Amino acid sequence: MSIRGFGSDNFSGVLPEVFNALKEASYGHQPSYGNDIYTERAVEAFRKIFGNKAEVFFVYNGTGANIVAISPFIRSYNAVICAETAHVHTDECGAIQKQTGCKLLTVPTFDGKLTVGLIENHMHGFGDQHHSQPALISLTQCTELGTVYTPQEIREICDYAHANGLYVHVDGARLANAVAFLGCDPKEITVDAGVDVLSFGGTKNGLMFGEAVIFFTAPAGQEVKYIRKQAMQLHSKSRFIAAQFAALLKNGLWLQTASHANAMARKLAVEAEAIPGVRITQKVEGNEVFAIIPRDRIEALQQEVFFYVWDHNTSEARWVCSFDTTENDIDEFVDLLRKELP
Amino acid sequence: MSIRGFGSDNFSGVLPEVFNALKEASYGHQPSYGNDIYTERAVEAFRKIFGNKAEVFFVYNGTGANIVAISPFIRSYNAVICAETAHVHTDECGAIQKQTGCKLLTVPTFDGKLTVGLIENHMHGFGDQHHSQPALISLTQCTELGTVYTPQEIREICDYAHANGLYVHVDGARLANAVAFLGCDPKEITVDAGVDVLSFGGTKNGLMFGEAVIFFTAPAGQEVKYIRKQAMQLHSKSRFIAAQFAALLKNGLWLQTASHANAMARKLAVEAEAIPGVRITQKVEGNEVFAIIPRDRIEALQQEVFFYVWDHNTSEARWVCSFDTTENDIDEFVDLLRKELP
Amino acid sequence: MSIRGFGSDNFSGVLPEVFNALKEASYGHQPSYGNDIYTERAVEAFRKIFGNKAEVFFVYNGTGANIVAISPFIRSYNAVICAETAHVHTDECGAIQKQTGCKLLTVPTFDGKLTVGLIENHMHGFGDQHHSQPALISLTQCTELGTVYTPQEIREICDYAHANGLYVHVDGARLANAVAFLGCDPKEITVDAGVDVLSFGGTKNGLMFGEAVIFFTAPAGQEVKYIRKQAMQLHSKSRFIAAQFAALLKNGLWLQTASHANAMARKLAVEAEAIPGVRITQKVEGNEVFAIIPRDRIEALQQEVFFYVWDHNTSEARWVCSFDTTENDIDEFVDLLRKELP
Amino acid sequence: MSIRGFGSDNFSGVLPEVFNALKEASYGHQPSYGNDIYTERAVEAFRKIFGNKAEVFFVYNGTGANIVAISPFIRSYNAVICAETAHVHTDECGAIQKQTGCKLLTVPTFDGKLTVGLIENHMHGFGDQHHSQPALISLTQCTELGTVYTPQEIREICDYAHANGLYVHVDGARLANAVAFLGCDPKEITVDAGVDVLSFGGTKNGLMFGEAVIFFTAPAGQEVKYIRKQAMQLHSKSRFIAAQFAALLKNGLWLQTASHANAMARKLAVEAEAIPGVRITQKVEGNEVFAIIPRDRIEALQQEVFFYVWDHNTSEARWVCSFDTTENDIDEFVDLLRKELP
Repeated sequence: MSIRGFGSDNFSGVLPEVFNALKEASYGHQPSYGNDIYTERAVEAFRKIFGNKAEVFFVYNGTGANIVAISPFIRSYNAVICAETAHVHTDECGAIQKQTGCKLLTVPTFDGKLTVGLIENHMHGFGDQHHSQPALISLTQCTELGTVYTPQEIREICDYAHANGLYVHVDGARLANAVAFLGCDPKEITVDAGVDVLSFGGTKNGLMFGEAVIFFTAPAGQEVKYIRKQAMQLHSKSRFIAAQFAALLKNGLWLQTASHANAMARKLAVEAEAIPGVRITQKVEGNEVFAIIPRDRIEALQQEVFFYVWDHNTSEARWVCSFDTTENDIDEFVDLLRKELP
Repeated sequence: MSIRGFGSDNFSGVLPEVFNALKEASYGHQPSYGNDIYTERAVEAFRKIFGNKAEVFFVYNGTGANIVAISPFIRSYNAVICAETAHVHTDECGAIQKQTGCKLLTVPTFDGKLTVGLIENHMHGFGDQHHSQPALISLTQCTELGTVYTPQEIREICDYAHANGLYVHVDGARLANAVAFLGCDPKEITVDAGVDVLSFGGTKNGLMFGEAVIFFTAPAGQEVKYIRKQAMQLHSKSRFIAAQFAALLKNGLWLQTASHANAMARKLAVEAEAIPGVRITQKVEGNEVFAIIPRDRIEALQQEVFFYVWDHNTSEARWVCSFDTTENDIDEFVDLLRKELP
Repeated sequence: MSIRGFGSDNFSGVLPEVFNALKEASYGHQPSYGNDIYTERAVEAFRKIFGNKAEVFFVYNGTGANIVAISPFIRSYNAVICAETAHVHTDECGAIQKQTGCKLLTVPTFDGKLTVGLIENHMHGFGDQHHSQPALISLTQCTELGTVYTPQEIREICDYAHANGLYVHVDGARLANAVAFLGCDPKEITVDAGVDVLSFGGTKNGLMFGEAVIFFTAPAGQEVKYIRKQAMQLHSKSRFIAAQFAALLKNGLWLQTASHANAMARKLAVEAEAIPGVRITQKVEGNEVFAIIPRDRIEALQQEVFFYVWDHNTSEARWVCSFDTTENDIDEFVDLLRKELP
Repeated sequence: MSIRGFGSDNFSGVLPEVFNALKEASYGHQPSYGNDIYTERAVEAFRKIFGNKAEVFFVYNGTGANIVAISPFIRSYNAVICAETAHVHTDECGAIQKQTGCKLLTVPTFDGKLTVGLIENHMHGFGDQHHSQPALISLTQCTELGTVYTPQEIREICDYAHANGLYVHVDGARLANAVAFLGCDPKEITVDAGVDVLSFGGTKNGLMFGEAVIFFTAPAGQEVKYIRKQAMQLHSKSRFIAAQFAALLKNGLWLQTASHANAMARKLAVEAEAIPGVRITQKVEGNEVFAIIPRDRIEALQQEVFFYVWDHNTSEARWVCSFDTTENDIDEFVDLLRKELP
C-alpha cells in the first residue's frame, strides 16, 4: 500500500511556509502561556479577518477546540443540537458529555446540513425541569459530508437560534475549504451571519498541530482561559501554535491551500463519476468526495491506496484531498479505479 | 528586559536534534492517530529504557499526561495523595477534580518530597462511605522544589502504597533531571522501584510539544486510548510527537540536556550563594534554584532578567535553567546580582 | 379540576400498610446510614424474592436508582443503549450524562421495547478510540409505553449483551406491574434471565419515598456504597426507606397493589375503547393506557380530570392508574369521555 | 448497648407534630414535583421567616442541599473555601468535587469557625489561569465543632467576600440550634448578614427526610430547578417534604426542639466537666459536646451508650443531643461516666 492516499487531510504533513515559521520561532526564549510575540501577531492576523472584537484562543486539537468553544455557553443541564453526522457526536469518544455533562440532541440529515425545520424537532420542553434545556446549536462547516452552508443558510439558523435564546457554534475544522468554495469574505459565514463562536481548523489545513477558538459574542471574556487550562488545552510553549497560524493566515495562504484541496476533490469526483460502478452521493463542495463503489472491489482498492469506508451498509467510500494532494495522485487513483472496477 | 532568563524551562525553544527530526517527519503522508512509523520507533526507544512491558501513550501536555496517567487507577469517589507543592494541586486549575471527580489530599513538606510518615496522615477512613477513599499517591520527580527522590525513597513509598492497596504515579515533567542527578538507570527510580505509571516530560526538556505517559502496571491495556481521546489528548498527526521523542531519546540526548541544565543550576547556586544577601533554601539537585533575596531588590532584578517570585511572604525567588542556558547567562546574572544586592 | 386523576402513579399517596410501618419506625433511636434493624429486615425480604446473592442498596428516587445501578458498570468513555422513550433519556434532565460522562445511544421503537435487532444498530465501533464504547443496555420494565417484556425477551437481550461484553440494567420503576401482569416469579424476568442490576421501584407503588437498587452481578461489592454517597443518595435516617420496603414486600402486598392498578388500567382501556373517537395505541399490559383522542376535546377533559398529553403531534393521551385508583374513578372518567367526545 | 445514645442527631426519629402532618398528607392525590398545596404552604412559612425574596427549593438530604446551593454560583474552574472540619470536605465522599468539578480550599481552625484572616490565606491567584479561582465561601452554622457564628462574625465574612467578588453559603444543617443559642431573628445570621444561600436543615431536627435550600441572591431564578433534577434531588411526591417543613416551622416548633437539644448538651457538658478525667474542648453553644476522656475507658463506655470518637489522636469524644434526648438520658450517661472513669 502506498502511504499517499485519500484517508484524511490529517494524513498529510506540514506546509513549507508553516514549517519555516516554526523554524524561526524555535530559537531563543519566549514567555510561555501566550505572552509571546507570536501570539500577538497571530491574534492580530485573525482580527484582520474576523474583526477587532474577535477573542482568539489557541488550543491543541479539534476536539479541544469544540469543548473550549461550547463550554462558556452551556451548563450541564443544557442540550446541544447537532447533525447526526457531526464530529462532536461521532468521533470524539463522548468528550462533550464528559467535559460538559450535557446531552447531545442529534438530527438525521441528507447532506450533513442542519436547517431550521430539522432543528425545530428538538425545540420543546423549555422550562420543564425534567428536560435538558436546548442552549446551543453546533454546525460543521464544511459538513462531515463535504457540503457547504451558504451565508444565507447560516444566517437563518443563527436568527432562529437567537430568537429562541440559543447560541450558535461552528465547528470549522474545514472552514477554509468552505470559504474557498463560496469565494466569500470569511466574516459572511461567521460573525456577520450571527455565529457566536468558531472552531477554526489548522491541523487539517497544513499545520503540525493547533487549532484556534474564536469568540464573537461576549461570554468569553475572562472565563475562557480557565476553561482552556482545566480542559488541558493550554500549551506552555504557545508560541509554536501561534507562529503556525501567523504563517497560515499570511497573504491568504490558508485559502490557497484549501482551494487546491477543493480543486483536487472536484477533479477526482468528475473523473471518478465517469467510471461505471461509481456513484457520487454528495455535492462535492469542499475537499471530500463520497462515492458508492462495488462492495467487492473495496479491499483490492484499499490495498493500493488507503481510504476509509464511510458506510459499510451502502458500500460508500470517503476520499479526502488535502493541501498536498497532487494531480498525479488523482490520475493514478482514477486509473486504479478504472482498472479495478468491473 | 532581556527575554533570556530563568523564568521557566518552558521559556526555551526546541533542541536542534529534535527540530531536525520534525523536519524529516514533516513531508509526505502518514496514517494518523498513532499508526505511523515514528510512533513505532519512539515506543521502541522507550521500551529500551523502561522494559518491554512499558505501555506508552503520547499526549499534548503535562496536565494531560497527569490526567491520562491517573485516570485508569481511580474512580470519582477516590482520593489522590500528593505534596502541597505538587503541580497537580497548584498549577493545573483544578483539572484533576474536573476530569476525575476526585479529591486531592495534600501534604505540607519541607523539600517537596513525600515520605511514608507524611502520607500516613491521610491513610484513614478506609471502608467509610462518607470518606473519599485514598487510591493513588502522586510524586513529582524532580520535585517542584528542585529536589530529587532517591531510588530507595521511591521504593519505600511504593512498597507502602502497594501494601495498602494504593498505586503510585510519578509526575516526571523533569524526570530527566532527576536521572541525570542520580546517575542511575532510569528504571531504578521508576519501574524497578515499583512505580505504576509515569508522566515522562518532553516540553521542559527541549521538545516543541508533547509528553509521554508510560504504564508499568496492568490497568492500562485497552482502556487508556479511550481515556486519552475523551480527554482531548489524542493528536491526529501523532507522528509529530513521536518523532520528537525518538530524537530526544536517541543516544541519551535527553540526559545530556538535563545534565547541562543541572550543571548550570549548580553553578548559579554556588556563585549566587557567595553573594551577601542571597540564601539558597533548597538543595540544588535538578535544574532549579530557590533563593531568598532582599525583597526591595526583586523588581530591579526582574527588569533586567525575568524570573518568578516563588513565595512573596519569604521573598524567595525561583531560578530555572534549561537545555539552552549558557555559562554566559549565569555569569551575567551573577554579575547582576552582585551589582544589585546591597 | 378534581385532584384525583390519571396524571401519574406518583400523584397518589402512601399505602396504609406502609404508613403504619413508618409509624412504628418513627420512635426511638436507630443507628444511621444503614446499620438499623429495618434495613436488615428489608434486605432479607428482597433476598427471599431475588436470591441470597442479591446486593441491595436503598436510595431516594428513580433517577438516583438508575445512576447508582449503572455507574459501577461503566466509565465515562462508554455508551449506554436504551429505547428512545426511556426515562433515563427523556425525563432525567441529562442526569446520566452529568453523573457518568457517558453517551446515551437511543433506539426508536414501536412499543417501548428493545430487541436484539434494534440494539444491533448501535453495536459497532468497538476498539475504535474515537467511538464511545457500548457497555450497558438499559431496559425499562414495564416500558414507558405500558408494555411488558416477557422472560424470553429479556433473556434474549441478556444473552446477546453478555456474548458481546455488555451488561444489562432494568429500570424497574414499575417492575411490580410487570410481574403482576406476567404472573411469573420475579426472578424469571430479572436474575434468572441474566439481568445484572435492577432499579426496583417503590414510590410509584405506594411508598412515600425510596427506591432500591439490586445487584445480581459482582461489580457492586464494596464500590457501590461510595458511589451512592457521592451521588447524594444515601439517607442518614435510612430506616425510613427500609421500613417501607419491608412492609411493601410483606405477604406480597407489592404485587396486590400492582395487580389492582393493572386491572384498573385494563378496565379503563376496555371501556374507553368502546367510545367512538378513542383509539388505544399500545397493548395495556401494566397500569398505563395510551389513547388517541380528539385534539379539540383534550383541554375540556383535563379541566375535569388531570392527565398528561403524551404526544401532541398525534393527540395521544397517557392515563396512569395506581394502587388507589378506584372503580368509581374509572366509571366517572369513562362517563366524562362519553359526554365530552363528539 | 442501648440504642439510645449520643451518636448523632440523625439517630433520632420523627417529631410527633411532623409525623401527624405526614399522616394528613398521605391520603389522596396531589400533583407531583412541587405543584402541590403543601409546597405552597411550606414556601410561605419560609418566607415569613426569611423574607419574601427567599427562593425555596426542597431536596432530599444535606449533601444534596449543599450541592444544589453551591452549584449556581460556581463553575468547574472555581474553588470553594471552607474550614478543614467542614462537612462538605470531610463527610460527603467528594460529592462537591464530583458534582461541580471544583477544588475545595480548606482552612485549619481552632473552633470550626472561619474568619476573614483565615480566609485571606487562600485569596490569591486571581486572574492566573493556572489557579482555581476562589468564588464562594462555605460556612457551617452551628459549626461541626458545636460552636456558633455571631451575626457580626457572619457579616464580616460576607462583607469581605462580596468586596472580593465571592459569594457566601451557609451549611445550616443545624441552623436551628444556632438561632436558638443566639436568640436572634433568623434573618440576622442569614439574609441580613449578607448570606447568599442557605442549606436549611430538617433531618437532624426531627424530620423523617428532607432539607431546604434557600437562595437570597439572584442567580437562583430559573436555573436551580434543572440543577436539582440533574442532581437527583427532586422528589416526585414532593408534598411529603413540604408537609414536614410546614409542620416544623409552625409556631416556632423548629426552635423549641433546637433549644431543648441545646439545653441537654449544656447540661451534659456542665455535669461531665465536673468529673475528673473529662475535659470539655469546645464551647458548648449548640447541641454538641466535645470532650477528651481517658483513652482506655472509651470502649467500655461505648458498650453501654453509643457515641463517636471525634479524634483518636487526642482521645476526644463527640456527644450529640437531639430533640428527643431526655434529662434522664443525660443523668444515666453522667452516672456511667462517673462510674467508668477512674
